[in-house]
Amino acid sequence: MAKKEVKTIGVLTSGGDAPGMNAAIRAVVRTAINKGLKVKGIMRGYAGLLQEEIVDMDSVSVADTINRGGTILYTARCEEFQTEEGQKMGAEICRKHGIDGVVVIGGDGSFRGAGKLSALGINTIGLPGTIDLDIACTDYTIGFDTAVNTAMEAIDKVRDTSTSHERCSIIEVMGRRAGYIALWCGIANGAEDILLPERYDGNEQYLINRIIENRKRGKKHHIIINAEGIGHSTSMARRIEAATGIETRATIIGHIQRGGTPTCKDRVYASIMGAKAAELLWEGKSNRIVAYRGGRFVDYDIQEALNMTKDISEEQFEISKLLVR
Amino acid sequence: MAKKEVKTIGVLTSGGDAPGMNAAIRAVVRTAINKGLKVKGIMRGYAGLLQEEIVDMDSVSVADTINRGGTILYTARCEEFQTEEGQKMGAEICRKHGIDGVVVIGGDGSFRGAGKLSALGINTIGLPGTIDLDIACTDYTIGFDTAVNTAMEAIDKVRDTSTSHERCSIIEVMGRRAGYIALWCGIANGAEDILLPERYDGNEQYLINRIIENRKRGKKHHIIINAEGIGHSTSMARRIEAATGIETRATIIGHIQRGGTPTCKDRVYASIMGAKAAELLWEGKSNRIVAYRGGRFVDYDIQEALNMTKDISEEQFEISKLLVR
Amino acid sequence: MAKKEVKTIGVLTSGGDAPGMNAAIRAVVRTAINKGLKVKGIMRGYAGLLQEEIVDMDSVSVADTINRGGTILYTARCEEFQTEEGQKMGAEICRKHGIDGVVVIGGDGSFRGAGKLSALGINTIGLPGTIDLDIACTDYTIGFDTAVNTAMEAIDKVRDTSTSHERCSIIEVMGRRAGYIALWCGIANGAEDILLPERYDGNEQYLINRIIENRKRGKKHHIIINAEGIGHSTSMARRIEAATGIETRATIIGHIQRGGTPTCKDRVYASIMGAKAAELLWEGKSNRIVAYRGGRFVDYDIQEALNMTKDISEEQFEISKLLVR
Amino acid sequence: MAKKEVKTIGVLTSGGDAPGMNAAIRAVVRTAINKGLKVKGIMRGYAGLLQEEIVDMDSVSVADTINRGGTILYTARCEEFQTEEGQKMGAEICRKHGIDGVVVIGGDGSFRGAGKLSALGINTIGLPGTIDLDIACTDYTIGFDTAVNTAMEAIDKVRDTSTSHERCSIIEVMGRRAGYIALWCGIANGAEDILLPERYDGNEQYLINRIIENRKRGKKHHIIINAEGIGHSTSMARRIEAATGIETRATIIGHIQRGGTPTCKDRVYASIMGAKAAELLWEGKSNRIVAYRGGRFVDYDIQEALNMTKDISEEQFEISKLLVR
Repeated sequence: MAKKEVKTIGVLTSGGDAPGMNAAIRAVVRTAINKGLKVKGIMRGYAGLLQEEIVDMDSVSVADTINRGGTILYTARCEEFQTEEGQKMGAEICRKHGIDGVVVIGGDGSFRGAGKLSALGINTIGLPGTIDLDIACTDYTIGFDTAVNTAMEAIDKVRDTSTSHERCSIIEVMGRRAGYIALWCGIANGAEDILLPERYDGNEQYLINRIIENRKRGKKHHIIINAEGIGHSTSMARRIEAATGIETRATIIGHIQRGGTPTCKDRVYASIMGAKAAELLWEGKSNRIVAYRGGRFVDYDIQEALNMTKDISEEQFEISKLLVR
Repeated sequence: MAKKEVKTIGVLTSGGDAPGMNAAIRAVVRTAINKGLKVKGIMRGYAGLLQEEIVDMDSVSVADTINRGGTILYTARCEEFQTEEGQKMGAEICRKHGIDGVVVIGGDGSFRGAGKLSALGINTIGLPGTIDLDIACTDYTIGFDTAVNTAMEAIDKVRDTSTSHERCSIIEVMGRRAGYIALWCGIANGAEDILLPERYDGNEQYLINRIIENRKRGKKHHIIINAEGIGHSTSMARRIEAATGIETRATIIGHIQRGGTPTCKDRVYASIMGAKAAELLWEGKSNRIVAYRGGRFVDYDIQEALNMTKDISEEQFEISKLLVR
Repeated sequence: MAKKEVKTIGVLTSGGDAPGMNAAIRAVVRTAINKGLKVKGIMRGYAGLLQEEIVDMDSVSVADTINRGGTILYTARCEEFQTEEGQKMGAEICRKHGIDGVVVIGGDGSFRGAGKLSALGINTIGLPGTIDLDIACTDYTIGFDTAVNTAMEAIDKVRDTSTSHERCSIIEVMGRRAGYIALWCGIANGAEDILLPERYDGNEQYLINRIIENRKRGKKHHIIINAEGIGHSTSMARRIEAATGIETRATIIGHIQRGGTPTCKDRVYASIMGAKAAELLWEGKSNRIVAYRGGRFVDYDIQEALNMTKDISEEQFEISKLLVR
Repeated sequence: MAKKEVKTIGVLTSGGDAPGMNAAIRAVVRTAINKGLKVKGIMRGYAGLLQEEIVDMDSVSVADTINRGGTILYTARCEEFQTEEGQKMGAEICRKHGIDGVVVIGGDGSFRGAGKLSALGINTIGLPGTIDLDIACTDYTIGFDTAVNTAMEAIDKVRDTSTSHERCSIIEVMGRRAGYIALWCGIANGAEDILLPERYDGNEQYLINRIIENRKRGKKHHIIINAEGIGHSTSMARRIEAATGIETRATIIGHIQRGGTPTCKDRVYASIMGAKAAELLWEGKSNRIVAYRGGRFVDYDIQEALNMTKDISEEQFEISKLLVR
């Protein structure tokens, strides 16, 4: 693809929000301005683009935001932008506002839109922003580290009361298609069982047997981490209580995992990625996703990245099972 | 009541656990030992008493516990102890183990049992331990301060994502009969609406109207704190979304609120109350509840205390409504 | 004092900042507006008043501030306002800007200024804002609860490493004239010794003997909480290490204790106090300090309040010593 | 090196403690037991080895430790083990206790000792445990993630009060030879200046000019992160205040950074590394360090690893400067 000089860039957040998005926005804005570019904020993702909710941004616009959860640009879903017509209108509006490059912070769906915009002549760079870690081309996504710490701290607390009452606890963490949060918490909280969308076979009898067996061996609690993608924690708790005679409670951590001040890693990595996205646009690149892989920040072609697949680490899963007595 | 010299005391936790119970246990044990008494730990509340799960405790037994959530003595419900027969057996077992005084940490139900034990000749002192603050004779209960901070911090996080997505959020906090956690969080988190068991009339239409009105005025989110005693947060969210057209999500914070390292206030007040309980037993007192009222630590006759009533502060409720723009 | 109708009020923060000041400002602003008053923010305390740094405030000015540390109005010391001339000029500037009532959030020094302004015809209400709890008329000051929790959490962490290395640790917490933070942390962290400005006699040999004795009894660490008012933690550590042969380290927690998101109690109490201050002005009251005493929110005449004295709780101090094994 | 079958392994922590060490110990113990090995805990590092402070460990010994800061095995420095004689005695004691493999958790100094033990016929595996990240062969060390988050949260709080008072703040973080904590916090807290042992040239006049310049541009605070290796924060603050006329305060975060419950990353990575260390011993390997590099867990020859060098990331340092307005 021929390189094109960009003068004004836009930045938007799309899909579910994630802690660290503001750090990324801040880095995009300040790096771009440092390179001599102008920056516009596109509110509410692609929906705001189509409604021309576009504001000028400067260095001050992003002051005191690095430590704040959520996204100062707001976010929304947008079905219209999934149509060819919507995409063309989006590109047209970019041109109308003099925007010749856009940084899109979001997940796979958002990158698909970015790819379309790129094909329509607007340079685009994607940044992986999702707490679920479910973007194949990268080992890191903005927000995962914060979300997994939030979940872990919540589970530490549930564990206290679960032990006091000698209960079984099923704790549901986020992750619709991907079990990364569940797996990390499983290890970090020393959970007796971890139910992952990628692995769980629905064998509740196996869980029930393990609970009964552990109780016989004198364990005071039994913690099951359940990923959102499996769900049904409340009814599962009822069935397990009925089958084991052991008091069993479900806790669904929910949207707490989406918010909160970002961890150090999320602030630092999101900042580096945001800086890199602005640099790539400045260099005239388009249709790329910034990723972290093999310990380095790299970038991939959008379509190539969307075709990649990844799985949870088998090694990590094995260790999680091994380390629970 | 004639005073009786006690030589050995027992301590138990009963009902739902609460952060700070360990600080109270530690203070009971160390104060009693300091006064020359012997101390025994009664495991799993009244249930453990009836099963004679009784262990010797010394200063070291409670080392490194002040900062830990849950209760090192475990807790359980016990229907048997609600019968006269159970109570007599409990008193008998105390005598058998040389226990002539018991500190009972729990809620109203636990105090009723303590009153019975006292009538059967075992000196008893109650300590108010419940996250719900629903004990009439006292302005403070062990665990409330930690629980309300845990809930508040969780709601701060939900608010981040609620704002990013411009959603309405219903957040359910603990409190079956009492709305204290809901009311405190309502003020501390600047919630648009607070639904209290003591006040809520079920008028969902009023909520719906307020949400629509606020949205017109440009508010980016609408936070409703709902007490467990009202419940049904998930179905309420569905109805509100249907009626307003505004995306509405429910989060039930749940058992997270029961655990975690206690706040400074919970550690300090639980320590003072625990010390006071041991002193009262040492002085030969019985059938008393230690309370904090009017800025001072005091104690009440158990039956007198159980007959008291209290309500949420109307002033605080009015202020909560006033301060939300 | 004859009551005077006020139409426009100012609000300022003065002296050291404290978490919860923003909650108080928010409550002042919104309550006043609700009563039909106008509100102006006076920046940088009395210094900003003299320089006429005065801005209009409305409900939106205080949106999203309840959870933020620091003070959105900034704060500063002001020697000029301690002179009669400065005070007259301050009253003059208030009149010039149509301000006929002022809420002053700060400590004793700030209240003295408020008393002068009141005598010069500007109605004033003081709110106790200081992390040190060193205001005699009140059992609660805005910021103490947050500061003491921040200090406690820091000390919990120091204790971990102090135990790993079997060290003696001297941890200096804030409190120049008052040992409240030290005393609360002393209990909450189970410190072996607590050095309070109100009590410490400088007998280092006593400390040294205790450390040696505790080590003999097998204790793995020795935590000394030292109040800022005693200070010299680093040299004390050197002397203790030399005398005991036990590795001893000093940690000065410092300004960390002044910041951070306020605890639930600080948010709720600061909100109630702010609301009360605005109401008092609206009722035409002047020269009063809002206080929390005996479990209730009350208000005192400024001069009367400044003449009160208070001391740390002897009971609490005794318990702190008793509970350490 | 010929592989040797091991039957009993020891585990010790050495040098400064770091959050996550307990997670590593737990993983070593449980993995080893799972492989059919016996495990002994060596207390107080090499010092405890020489004093034969050796205890049997099983699965239960490490229950409820994954979330605890510090090290349950304690740690100490040991000059004697730096001598050939000490090392021989150490190997002898291992043999006496039937220990034919040792996992050493610590830093470079500890690995040097491990290398010596290995040469003397005791199989050894090193795990990188230090909050400073200053081990050349690995991109991750146990404890860094927790320490950097602790420091960041503390700096967030200092920033609140620094802004309220419009001060300059110098905040000293740990890192004697390495500026990783300083650099990460510098980015994460949006610090105006970061002083790294690897880069700082002592040019205080440059700092002073920047502070004055920033103040002219309207910045409300100026945060300087200073690494321990540069130190002298208090005197630097005095000089800067004298030169700029702007109130300047120093905060030395200190040992707080060494403690606290480990973050999710520290728990998970320390667990994986601990499991890997036990596996390597079981496979008969010796003289290796487990590392994380290029996104994978790998292992290196000890001497090879000790000869590696690394530097802070120039890219990260450049970004840190760029992102501050």
